[in-house]
Amino acid sequence: MELKLGQQKSKLEINNIHKLQQDFNRIRETTLQLTQGLTAEDMQLQSMEDASPTKWHLAHTTWFFEEFILKQHIPDYKSHQEQYGYLFNSYYEAVGNRHQRPLRGMLSRPPLPDVIEYRRVINQKILELINSEPSTLSTIIDLVELGLHHEMQHQELLQTDILHALSIHPFFPQVKNRSSKQAHGESAALQFKSFQGGMIEIGLSGHSFHYDCEGPRHQYYQHPFALSKRLINNGEWLEFIQDKGYRTATLWLSEGWACNQRENWQAPLYWHQRDGKWFQFGLDGLQPIDLTAPVCHISYFEADAFASWAGHRLPKEQEWELASQSHPMEGNFLEQQHWRPLPPRWQDQSTIAQLYGDVWEWTQSPFTPYPGFKIADGAIGEYNGKFMCGQFVLRGGSCATPIQQMRPSYRNFFYPHQRWQYSGLRLAKDL
Amino acid sequence: MELKLGQQKSKLEINNIHKLQQDFNRIRETTLQLTQGLTAEDMQLQSMEDASPTKWHLAHTTWFFEEFILKQHIPDYKSHQEQYGYLFNSYYEAVGNRHQRPLRGMLSRPPLPDVIEYRRVINQKILELINSEPSTLSTIIDLVELGLHHEMQHQELLQTDILHALSIHPFFPQVKNRSSKQAHGESAALQFKSFQGGMIEIGLSGHSFHYDCEGPRHQYYQHPFALSKRLINNGEWLEFIQDKGYRTATLWLSEGWACNQRENWQAPLYWHQRDGKWFQFGLDGLQPIDLTAPVCHISYFEADAFASWAGHRLPKEQEWELASQSHPMEGNFLEQQHWRPLPPRWQDQSTIAQLYGDVWEWTQSPFTPYPGFKIADGAIGEYNGKFMCGQFVLRGGSCATPIQQMRPSYRNFFYPHQRWQYSGLRLAKDL
Amino acid sequence: MELKLGQQKSKLEINNIHKLQQDFNRIRETTLQLTQGLTAEDMQLQSMEDASPTKWHLAHTTWFFEEFILKQHIPDYKSHQEQYGYLFNSYYEAVGNRHQRPLRGMLSRPPLPDVIEYRRVINQKILELINSEPSTLSTIIDLVELGLHHEMQHQELLQTDILHALSIHPFFPQVKNRSSKQAHGESAALQFKSFQGGMIEIGLSGHSFHYDCEGPRHQYYQHPFALSKRLINNGEWLEFIQDKGYRTATLWLSEGWACNQRENWQAPLYWHQRDGKWFQFGLDGLQPIDLTAPVCHISYFEADAFASWAGHRLPKEQEWELASQSHPMEGNFLEQQHWRPLPPRWQDQSTIAQLYGDVWEWTQSPFTPYPGFKIADGAIGEYNGKFMCGQFVLRGGSCATPIQQMRPSYRNFFYPHQRWQYSGLRLAKDL
Amino acid sequence: MELKLGQQKSKLEINNIHKLQQDFNRIRETTLQLTQGLTAEDMQLQSMEDASPTKWHLAHTTWFFEEFILKQHIPDYKSHQEQYGYLFNSYYEAVGNRHQRPLRGMLSRPPLPDVIEYRRVINQKILELINSEPSTLSTIIDLVELGLHHEMQHQELLQTDILHALSIHPFFPQVKNRSSKQAHGESAALQFKSFQGGMIEIGLSGHSFHYDCEGPRHQYYQHPFALSKRLINNGEWLEFIQDKGYRTATLWLSEGWACNQRENWQAPLYWHQRDGKWFQFGLDGLQPIDLTAPVCHISYFEADAFASWAGHRLPKEQEWELASQSHPMEGNFLEQQHWRPLPPRWQDQSTIAQLYGDVWEWTQSPFTPYPGFKIADGAIGEYNGKFMCGQFVLRGGSCATPIQQMRPSYRNFFYPHQRWQYSGLRLAKDL
Repeated sequence: MELKLGQQKSKLEINNIHKLQQDFNRIRETTLQLTQGLTAEDMQLQSMEDASPTKWHLAHTTWFFEEFILKQHIPDYKSHQEQYGYLFNSYYEAVGNRHQRPLRGMLSRPPLPDVIEYRRVINQKILELINSEPSTLSTIIDLVELGLHHEMQHQELLQTDILHALSIHPFFPQVKNRSSKQAHGESAALQFKSFQGGMIEIGLSGHSFHYDCEGPRHQYYQHPFALSKRLINNGEWLEFIQDKGYRTATLWLSEGWACNQRENWQAPLYWHQRDGKWFQFGLDGLQPIDLTAPVCHISYFEADAFASWAGHRLPKEQEWELASQSHPMEGNFLEQQHWRPLPPRWQDQSTIAQLYGDVWEWTQSPFTPYPGFKIADGAIGEYNGKFMCGQFVLRGGSCATPIQQMRPSYRNFFYPHQRWQYSGLRLAKDL
Repeated sequence: MELKLGQQKSKLEINNIHKLQQDFNRIRETTLQLTQGLTAEDMQLQSMEDASPTKWHLAHTTWFFEEFILKQHIPDYKSHQEQYGYLFNSYYEAVGNRHQRPLRGMLSRPPLPDVIEYRRVINQKILELINSEPSTLSTIIDLVELGLHHEMQHQELLQTDILHALSIHPFFPQVKNRSSKQAHGESAALQFKSFQGGMIEIGLSGHSFHYDCEGPRHQYYQHPFALSKRLINNGEWLEFIQDKGYRTATLWLSEGWACNQRENWQAPLYWHQRDGKWFQFGLDGLQPIDLTAPVCHISYFEADAFASWAGHRLPKEQEWELASQSHPMEGNFLEQQHWRPLPPRWQDQSTIAQLYGDVWEWTQSPFTPYPGFKIADGAIGEYNGKFMCGQFVLRGGSCATPIQQMRPSYRNFFYPHQRWQYSGLRLAKDL
Repeated sequence: MELKLGQQKSKLEINNIHKLQQDFNRIRETTLQLTQGLTAEDMQLQSMEDASPTKWHLAHTTWFFEEFILKQHIPDYKSHQEQYGYLFNSYYEAVGNRHQRPLRGMLSRPPLPDVIEYRRVINQKILELINSEPSTLSTIIDLVELGLHHEMQHQELLQTDILHALSIHPFFPQVKNRSSKQAHGESAALQFKSFQGGMIEIGLSGHSFHYDCEGPRHQYYQHPFALSKRLINNGEWLEFIQDKGYRTATLWLSEGWACNQRENWQAPLYWHQRDGKWFQFGLDGLQPIDLTAPVCHISYFEADAFASWAGHRLPKEQEWELASQSHPMEGNFLEQQHWRPLPPRWQDQSTIAQLYGDVWEWTQSPFTPYPGFKIADGAIGEYNGKFMCGQFVLRGGSCATPIQQMRPSYRNFFYPHQRWQYSGLRLAKDL
Repeated sequence: MELKLGQQKSKLEINNIHKLQQDFNRIRETTLQLTQGLTAEDMQLQSMEDASPTKWHLAHTTWFFEEFILKQHIPDYKSHQEQYGYLFNSYYEAVGNRHQRPLRGMLSRPPLPDVIEYRRVINQKILELINSEPSTLSTIIDLVELGLHHEMQHQELLQTDILHALSIHPFFPQVKNRSSKQAHGESAALQFKSFQGGMIEIGLSGHSFHYDCEGPRHQYYQHPFALSKRLINNGEWLEFIQDKGYRTATLWLSEGWACNQRENWQAPLYWHQRDGKWFQFGLDGLQPIDLTAPVCHISYFEADAFASWAGHRLPKEQEWELASQSHPMEGNFLEQQHWRPLPPRWQDQSTIAQLYGDVWEWTQSPFTPYPGFKIADGAIGEYNGKFMCGQFVLRGGSCATPIQQMRPSYRNFFYPHQRWQYSGLRLAKDL
């Protein structure tokens, strides 16, 4: 998955340089902390074209600050290493040539300590720039904030990519501690909450940081609908498996069925059956399936087939956004360090649960421009627009997402066959 | 391209059996007439997985009547040939096994005369059934109508498929006469017509025949927009080529650029350059490009890149439908036998032109279900829904479309890389 | 399989022009007769890159006479059709561009009648040339003979190619009559005949027509060995299958095992199991396996695995040639029109049987140059040498081979994975 | 490239346990020394299926001693790590399942220090076993010797594999010091030495260690021939390039031409042109071409095309063996640590030079069994025989070969498209 950037549309009000410095230090440090438990050899692994090595994430997020801030705003800036521009550019066509993506796993050089040093040096220079004269600060402050959001996106990718890489290993290495919060409760029966719809507003509200594809805010006519009050869980997914959901062509989209057949899907990604029992691999190793935890690592194709099997459908992204508007943004995010989605914390179904965190929720909305959307100019302005083809929107964040990155208007997007993100589903229906 | 069927949602008012018989005779006969100029060997060609041999189209449309009408409504019906059910089923999972699609070109047996005879025999039996007692007629009348619309869809595919097959031949065989209507006029500069939008209704209106994906009719909030008054023509496309449109990454969707690079696109499909001049292959052979005729045989990716280059965007399908509502349905359809899109017939730009016929117009709307859409049960109810992933809607019909098949609500859909249909574009912009 | 030509090394003694005319007429006519039972649509089928359509064989063999004789020896010769040179050249780099091999099945044009006419016209012109002044005759006589041997090679390929094409059809069309000679006898136990070896001579003896790779005749030191007195039959192959020969990795060459796994081989090509009984498809349709008939349509990999399983090895080509020297050249060739290998006609094992005809015998000899071999100049001199890599020699001819084409020194060669020729095996061992 | 083992056919005379211990210590230590200059990340690189990571070589050669000696000869032996058997088996079907070869680069675990420790522990146990009672020693001595030869083969592969892996890196890392012995002399014109041939003996002579495919020694009739007195050098190769050797189809084997076209070969592997000058990448980095040094990293296809261009041919392996018999075994081997082939050390052409070391010499001999060859039983007896298909023999060793591994009868073999070994050529001709 490529990172999806864009031009922020509004300015963050910065009352306090100290807040920015704190954020910068904390977020940059968090990325490094995520590598705890990994060896230099782990951090070089690239298991598929969609994924990147951990070391590459560490370097690329640093290159971003160097390329778009230091090079642009320090006169006669001299690159930390001339070659890093080539090696750690991701896909910005406007910034020159770059190393081939599928060969990132071949970059044994620079070795890990050099990349750590690269981070240290660039961090220091950015902090110096922040502390320099106010006129400079006002010029770069938006870019620093963008760089930090960019970094947070890569924090999530770093986790999903290394998980995929380790999953190739025949002996399931465990790199994170098992969370003590794992509970094996009984999940309440699935209920739906109704929404009347009508003319609503969709898209970014307010002036905080956001990506271009989240706006412009616009009017939208929403038909009446209902959403399931919680996410679909592993127990329900097991019923789907046992009812031959994976072998019943008529439940699947045509492309989904072809993909299923080609890859011989039997269960979500990382599920393994041993002596008749199901386990799922995670950063905390191979663990027994928790029937009440949200199903995770499923493709859009699987989510859609499940919804057909259940007699319902997936939500539209506008439906999710409407539902989330009156909902506090809290949940199982990266900061909790559970490394897995968890069962819902309360059984009270008076409201809708698990909207944020745990797993990204597949919607049936293709990733398309909102009315009035325009692609911004230049390299940083590149690139949500160019991905507006063939991908579906996911909403709500996951257990691998930093909470600061999340917004009700945040639109994540992936191809319908992709499974290596922390992706799950909630059901919807027309009223 | 798979045929996209669905369950008709309303009943045709039949005042007159003779009308049905006439339609049946005429439409079935038209399919055969389309094969004029083709040899038995031509009619077996399959040049890619997306396309089918002419002979297969002849047989499959006949099988449709046999499978869904004769087998269901004649007691103890005995198949014309037991094996045809296996050979000529297209994709109906509910009706049993079928021959592998990519191997249709390997079906030298049955030979062409047997397929012609198959058509004759089944035609006769259907006509007998239509003439039988009224109770039977009322049961089958919707199915006959469906079969005829199915046949008309295949009439278009038959043309696009054989054109692709012949295009593989190194010497550009011409199988149809060149239309005398070809004109080489000067095209007026592109103008736009504005629409105010607001709450509108989208989807099938009335009770005539339609496919399931055209409904339900529903309310939709449309933002203000404008559409170009005519289609983009070959002259404008040539400017795009000369301005290095095909070599400028930043104009393209990410997937589109990858496809462009992989297939090394230089121009629309079937364009060939000879001694510095451009020609386009058609059923009427290799002909010089007419600069004022609509550009044709372009992918969604190309259409989208062109729109970016022009500083505009592609229309949404709702925008096209709104524009078409006050427009008479007339244009360059199959019945004119021009075999190519033609320049607009009038230069008066007081209104919007070329909405119908000539080329299918790519819209930026992914093919998704309308609010309240439900997939119908059973084999005939199969399958628009299962194609609702990764495809884009096209509107308006082409020079290969029978006019009787067209409706303002008609939603055609193809993958964004596909080019072998008669597809072109019109520009749109936000107001 | 590409045709393998070469420069003839000696001159045929022609006492009689009539003999040459007779041969020319007979051999050219035989090719056409082989198409009996085939439709124009059958004759266009190309089921894989290795194979060519029947129609293409008819045209290519004719093009050979036109290109290498008429064009070279008739002043101001005007091509029958300019485009045929492009369409029907096979692989002669020296004679200009040519149509892509994998697209031969897309050549619906010229239609079959035009190709028949092409044959008629060129035949007539060649016969005229033969009847012209003696000086011309002496110039072209070797080329005519070469063309006829080339034609005979294509007679065999025509059969193997159409058999493969028809085998793709789900309903096993039968295009030739079943031979009445099919017998289901009991086969005698396998015995070996010993040979002492020593210094022997290998390669063409005498001055008759031959290909360049058959010479030069040279001395060779042969170690003592023994050959099985007959070919391995279907009954023995069935034992190999039942003993899990196809699933036992240690019996197979490394590449062979990979090929076996990739293609999931279970039995020889064209074997099909129905209700527990084995059948093999042939030009005479799907017929029950004859346990006493030679196994046929096996790859080198399978032949080698069988030999390992049996505790023996495949013969070297020199061993076969030594054994054949005292043996009359007779057997089940094309002229018998059995269309399949047959059981041995006598059970007397005093001598070695089935050396000629029935099936080509895989040897363990890679196709390499004999000592002193030199590649000839020019287009006709092309091309046995360039195939001397990765292929294995087969000896003895098959039921699809014209007997006139066969010689004890004849070296056929194919890749070790190829199965669509009439190929089988005989066992050997060291003494 | 898979390692090619076999059963040793004769016993080493061991007068001295100390000699064995010394060899064991030295050879095992040499492998580790070869990793100097490499990081843990370098040592995990796998750049293609044919190659293995350095770390894997370190572990696999150790596993060999554990699996075939410790496990077999120590009662109740407990594996150092149960999982290593799965991870570090290469291809011995008889010893159970194994990790998929193309995924060796994904084995970040065990980390490098664990593998180093694995080597240390197993070394100690083997030395203990050698020092134990004489009866054990006599049982294992052949296996220890085999293990050491196996290790020496992997020493060469380790170098060729890491060279290939590093060559993928865009900035050409240098991991070994440049040898001071590099000389840029003028090479004498190519001369040939004649050999009369006749009845000769081929294959292993004596009772020293060897692989099964080197025997049995047997009589062979050799025709008269000549060999070039030195290897073909870079200067001659440059002429071939400049004469469009890479673009002239008629010089190439049919498969070779296809490979050339597919991979767009322009020069030997690792050659790069910069500002009009040629460089070749090696373990000592990117260095200018030395015109008098032997050409290296060429495929059989290229070697054969060059020979055709030069009007000669490649030698047969018997010709090389005959020439080498009166020649002392000395040359540019691994021990010299030049890391590249060098120009010949003397210009005196009275004899034949460069037979040993520098580059493996492609012969035109397919790798086939000698008369009387039999595949040995069991896992260790696996596997030269199973590679006897599609590969060509190379003779003489290279600058990456330990001299102790070399013998006049040593048959190396690779596929004709492979280029990553230190492979070059010498010319031959018939007399």
